[in-house]
Amino acid sequence: MSKAYINDDFLLLNKTAQNLYHNCAKDLPIIDFHCHLSPKEIAGDINFRNLTHIWLDGDHYKWRAMRACGEDELLITGAASDKEKFLAWARTVPKTLRNPLYHWTHMELKNPFGITNRLLSEETAESVWEECNDLLRKPEFSTQSLLKKNKVKVVGTTDDPTDSLEYHLQLKNEEKEFKVVPTFRPDNGMAVENKETFREWVSNLEKVSDTEITTFQHFLDALKSRHDFFDELGCRASDHGIERPHAASFSESKVSGIFDKIMKKQILDEGDVEVFKSAFLYYCGIMDAEKGWVMQLHIGPVRNNNSRMMKKVGKDAGFDSIGDAPIAQSLSKLLNRLDSGNNLPKTILYNSNPSDNELFSTMIGNFQDGSIPGKIQHGPSWWFLDQKDGIERQIESLSNMGILYEFIGMTTDSRSFLSYPRHDYFRRILCNLLGNEVEQGLLPDNIDLLNSYIERICFSNSNTYFGFDV
Amino acid sequence: MSKAYINDDFLLLNKTAQNLYHNCAKDLPIIDFHCHLSPKEIAGDINFRNLTHIWLDGDHYKWRAMRACGEDELLITGAASDKEKFLAWARTVPKTLRNPLYHWTHMELKNPFGITNRLLSEETAESVWEECNDLLRKPEFSTQSLLKKNKVKVVGTTDDPTDSLEYHLQLKNEEKEFKVVPTFRPDNGMAVENKETFREWVSNLEKVSDTEITTFQHFLDALKSRHDFFDELGCRASDHGIERPHAASFSESKVSGIFDKIMKKQILDEGDVEVFKSAFLYYCGIMDAEKGWVMQLHIGPVRNNNSRMMKKVGKDAGFDSIGDAPIAQSLSKLLNRLDSGNNLPKTILYNSNPSDNELFSTMIGNFQDGSIPGKIQHGPSWWFLDQKDGIERQIESLSNMGILYEFIGMTTDSRSFLSYPRHDYFRRILCNLLGNEVEQGLLPDNIDLLNSYIERICFSNSNTYFGFDV
Amino acid sequence: MSKAYINDDFLLLNKTAQNLYHNCAKDLPIIDFHCHLSPKEIAGDINFRNLTHIWLDGDHYKWRAMRACGEDELLITGAASDKEKFLAWARTVPKTLRNPLYHWTHMELKNPFGITNRLLSEETAESVWEECNDLLRKPEFSTQSLLKKNKVKVVGTTDDPTDSLEYHLQLKNEEKEFKVVPTFRPDNGMAVENKETFREWVSNLEKVSDTEITTFQHFLDALKSRHDFFDELGCRASDHGIERPHAASFSESKVSGIFDKIMKKQILDEGDVEVFKSAFLYYCGIMDAEKGWVMQLHIGPVRNNNSRMMKKVGKDAGFDSIGDAPIAQSLSKLLNRLDSGNNLPKTILYNSNPSDNELFSTMIGNFQDGSIPGKIQHGPSWWFLDQKDGIERQIESLSNMGILYEFIGMTTDSRSFLSYPRHDYFRRILCNLLGNEVEQGLLPDNIDLLNSYIERICFSNSNTYFGFDV
Repeated sequence: MSKAYINDDFLLLNKTAQNLYHNCAKDLPIIDFHCHLSPKEIAGDINFRNLTHIWLDGDHYKWRAMRACGEDELLITGAASDKEKFLAWARTVPKTLRNPLYHWTHMELKNPFGITNRLLSEETAESVWEECNDLLRKPEFSTQSLLKKNKVKVVGTTDDPTDSLEYHLQLKNEEKEFKVVPTFRPDNGMAVENKETFREWVSNLEKVSDTEITTFQHFLDALKSRHDFFDELGCRASDHGIERPHAASFSESKVSGIFDKIMKKQILDEGDVEVFKSAFLYYCGIMDAEKGWVMQLHIGPVRNNNSRMMKKVGKDAGFDSIGDAPIAQSLSKLLNRLDSGNNLPKTILYNSNPSDNELFSTMIGNFQDGSIPGKIQHGPSWWFLDQKDGIERQIESLSNMGILYEFIGMTTDSRSFLSYPRHDYFRRILCNLLGNEVEQGLLPDNIDLLNSYIERICFSNSNTYFGFDV
Repeated sequence: MSKAYINDDFLLLNKTAQNLYHNCAKDLPIIDFHCHLSPKEIAGDINFRNLTHIWLDGDHYKWRAMRACGEDELLITGAASDKEKFLAWARTVPKTLRNPLYHWTHMELKNPFGITNRLLSEETAESVWEECNDLLRKPEFSTQSLLKKNKVKVVGTTDDPTDSLEYHLQLKNEEKEFKVVPTFRPDNGMAVENKETFREWVSNLEKVSDTEITTFQHFLDALKSRHDFFDELGCRASDHGIERPHAASFSESKVSGIFDKIMKKQILDEGDVEVFKSAFLYYCGIMDAEKGWVMQLHIGPVRNNNSRMMKKVGKDAGFDSIGDAPIAQSLSKLLNRLDSGNNLPKTILYNSNPSDNELFSTMIGNFQDGSIPGKIQHGPSWWFLDQKDGIERQIESLSNMGILYEFIGMTTDSRSFLSYPRHDYFRRILCNLLGNEVEQGLLPDNIDLLNSYIERICFSNSNTYFGFDV
Repeated sequence: MSKAYINDDFLLLNKTAQNLYHNCAKDLPIIDFHCHLSPKEIAGDINFRNLTHIWLDGDHYKWRAMRACGEDELLITGAASDKEKFLAWARTVPKTLRNPLYHWTHMELKNPFGITNRLLSEETAESVWEECNDLLRKPEFSTQSLLKKNKVKVVGTTDDPTDSLEYHLQLKNEEKEFKVVPTFRPDNGMAVENKETFREWVSNLEKVSDTEITTFQHFLDALKSRHDFFDELGCRASDHGIERPHAASFSESKVSGIFDKIMKKQILDEGDVEVFKSAFLYYCGIMDAEKGWVMQLHIGPVRNNNSRMMKKVGKDAGFDSIGDAPIAQSLSKLLNRLDSGNNLPKTILYNSNPSDNELFSTMIGNFQDGSIPGKIQHGPSWWFLDQKDGIERQIESLSNMGILYEFIGMTTDSRSFLSYPRHDYFRRILCNLLGNEVEQGLLPDNIDLLNSYIERICFSNSNTYFGFDV
């Protein structure tokens, strides 16, 4: 290659795009409002032992790719050595052309490792392994150093309400160039389809909130006390992972009765699970609204499709996929129920199926009430859609049916400290798209106006929206 | 800007497109077969008082944009002055980049107002307000003048069967350069989910048709008499706005029984509403077939999602969105039931969710019977999809799975006399798309053939299809 | 035209694409693993009487286009002469711009007929008719000659389990440059919604397998004996055409009971049909897994929508369309049930609705188990989606969410011996797409790597996957 693959103008296919990126987007700080980084690993400012630990562990995107290429599970989640796993990944990489993994891999080798003269493959695996591992031991590659190097100003982690948040507490007491804030993710408090694990969770909630929970009201009170506690530690958002919206009709007494049945190990009636989830989401929404938090709804994936592998390697291991349940009616009902009582918080709706992009982009318009700009957001492309095509289609849909200017932009949703180049990826795509339309005469050639779009979408909109104040 | 934003070659990104547009598409007359213009305002040949009246009143596309940008309802549908409302819109405009509103706004400032040297914003708002208001007072800006200026040959309004059509009568008796024809839209006659308003509507139908309605057969007869009356006034089409097709099985006696229950204020059984709607659509289809009318089905939106705002500002105010109910089976059943008895009229199927484009483009193929070309049509991109992306995707889908050559093309569906540039928008997009493919060698470089496509799609197909004979 | 319409660089819009196509894709042999060619016509090495017989007979794509253009059924499937039918098609062709039929028509006139100086239309119809018919009489235009001319190495026909496979037997005993293998398509064995035709089919199955079938176990055994027989004749795959996946819970005794009710002409309970189909698919999957076959699921079309035409011209006549039933849950359940018992065969999932592309591309990832690369495949664009847009979108989806490198590529699914240029069409589209991304810097400029993708996708992946060993 005469020119580096991931060069300065990667993805920037026109002059205006290059101008917008290099003069505006490139150096903006990062607000990563939703991710799955470990607060413990941040607080400890640890260095990862090797490239497998920081790059492959927990990365089910890579795991899926390796399985599809015929790699044995031993080399993916099994007992093979770190190096063997890395070599399996390295030989998979050239097979991932056109998958975002290929771009990400080489963007991540460039930043932070500075490797731009090799593409990862079986042939280059040894040298990359050695070079990266050497670097990973240096202080500049500790978790906090990586955040600083990437100009990350906010990390929004994802936390169970029963979590002690001990590392958030620790981080809060230290002066930092970045904020680490928890996100209230009470999926386990809604998962009453498994009564046993639910009761365990309630038991944990009792302990952490130091209250006895024998009624649904107790349950809500305990949840509320955790909500308060999260708030004290800077939390500005809840998050719910749901296959579809839950919006069944319910009365308080009905829900209380269901809660009692669960706790008393009685048999649930048909529809009880749906009613409980509907009530749970509703009450959570009210709590969020009271505090000015953002309610995030990640809607759509069908999870844990493979029972055999679920038993073998557990959840979040790459056996989830895009669903297609109809959702317009129930999503509307859920939001409307909250709105009717003036209890609708700021809300981000993330879709899993790109065929729902336009549904989501129009749904948000039904509940914009003029109270704040962009109160209801169509969230950025996520998970299966976090790639050039997915990002472009979400932006296209939101632009056509909503107000791009108010968009809160990118978040990594990642489990790895190496994923920050995904913000760069998003920014290049955004600049390219706007630049292209300027050059086609579809947008006015007004660089100041375009820069304001980029600055807002890449940084200041989310800063204002969540109230991070950085 | 050295060059006007909306210049002669706006959207025409290749030489062939420019050739096709300037030598063929540009000057073709307009048939706006489906819109929501007021017959009264046409008949009265009125001048609008100011830019807010002609541009913002009733335009829920703009209202949604303003709400999403955080404007207060007072400035949208509230008690604020016309000028305050306009200023709120003006400051919203620069935030609508990539939304079709941005293109439309500046195309409409160019035609008819001739403003090409300014983009609308807070800074230019005053001058635009003054300049446009001055023009709006002139005779060249009366409703009929605007139609003539835009070479509009047919306006298909949207009318309730109980409407007196007095303004259509008036217009019919005057010599005009354009036709104004009613469209038979009996949504209120199908809305039996609200029995009270339905009964009121039946009562209006009694009055206007001068018959007593005590049975379902009376109801149909009265409807038929209005259908005849609409036909006398040049009506060539019905129209139905439905969230999903209704195709439940029914017998005449079953439907008669349901009608009786509604009129006697009795409680309906589960499924009765669906049965009634199914029968209603079926009988309407038969009436249309008998007269050689076109049956239009606007399918898919979920309406009035926001109860709070419904109470405050009513329907058609910007609280509707794209739905996702499965429809293939019921749509097929509805069309097949009519076709089986040789009662399927010419039919236009409009989809609300772009994910259904291909479903619609293939569904029409099931009922093309060779009787006339393009008997069943996949209607043009509409409402949320009336923008460059939506138009291109509908054309792409129809082209791939149907016969573009027979497409009846664009209609505005608009409530404003300023919306005719949307036909120009459509034409530029069509020319650009065809021109691009010629230059890529995907289409043969046969300008005569391409011009025939453009002439048909932009004008003559709809003229022939509806039988407007202009 | 100064330059032929279908020239050497047709669809190849950049230098890299031209390089990839001319130096790699162009001359690769063809494996047409799924089509509807007649084994009898291959075995007989027949010549077709005229262009209508080889080009229009059975081609419901063309029939639909002709109906949509207003041609009478007489000229489509009716009693008109072959020449009249051809003339009706010829005058339809210029109306099919942007439909794949337009490209296919002229690619097929070029290969095998060598006609590049005319576009088909009413004007050129006579000369094309004469010229092609003259050629069709020559030995170089026999069915086997056409296969050889197109470098076809494998033809996978589609065969009912009750078929004698006599022509496959005949072909197997001759030395050939190509293989003709049957595909086990037992749709009729699942179609218990029509009990009468099902019983007839069971009766045929009894005869051909020379066993008495009085129980469900007998039924399965007989099916299994045919499965074995197909295997002996080189069959490497089953195929199922289903509107949606069937995955209801069932017990063996339940299914046996349903079978008994069908055979005894008793009334089925609600849900019985679904249970039977669910069991049937499951047991077929097990048979496929045992033999290392590939299970193909063609999912989604809504068939025979037009009752009137069904009576008149029968099925597979152009009255089918794209469906929209939710399928994620049931598809997952079906695959998981097989996988749980280690009975999941290699599987190809074909979607009918392009809105399901991403669902399919992610669903396959749930069941990749590392046993072989690309064990579960998202099948190529098919039927309504077999065109440039459909092919690109399937490749885009599979690339983004799966591993393009393991993709088994194109198959014609065609009933005509003239359809082999569709492989060429696919290859040009693939080369264009990859070439374009190289030139944009999205893919590394590594021709060897890209050639390996093309060689695999266009030939060797399917050869290995099915185990054709050519």
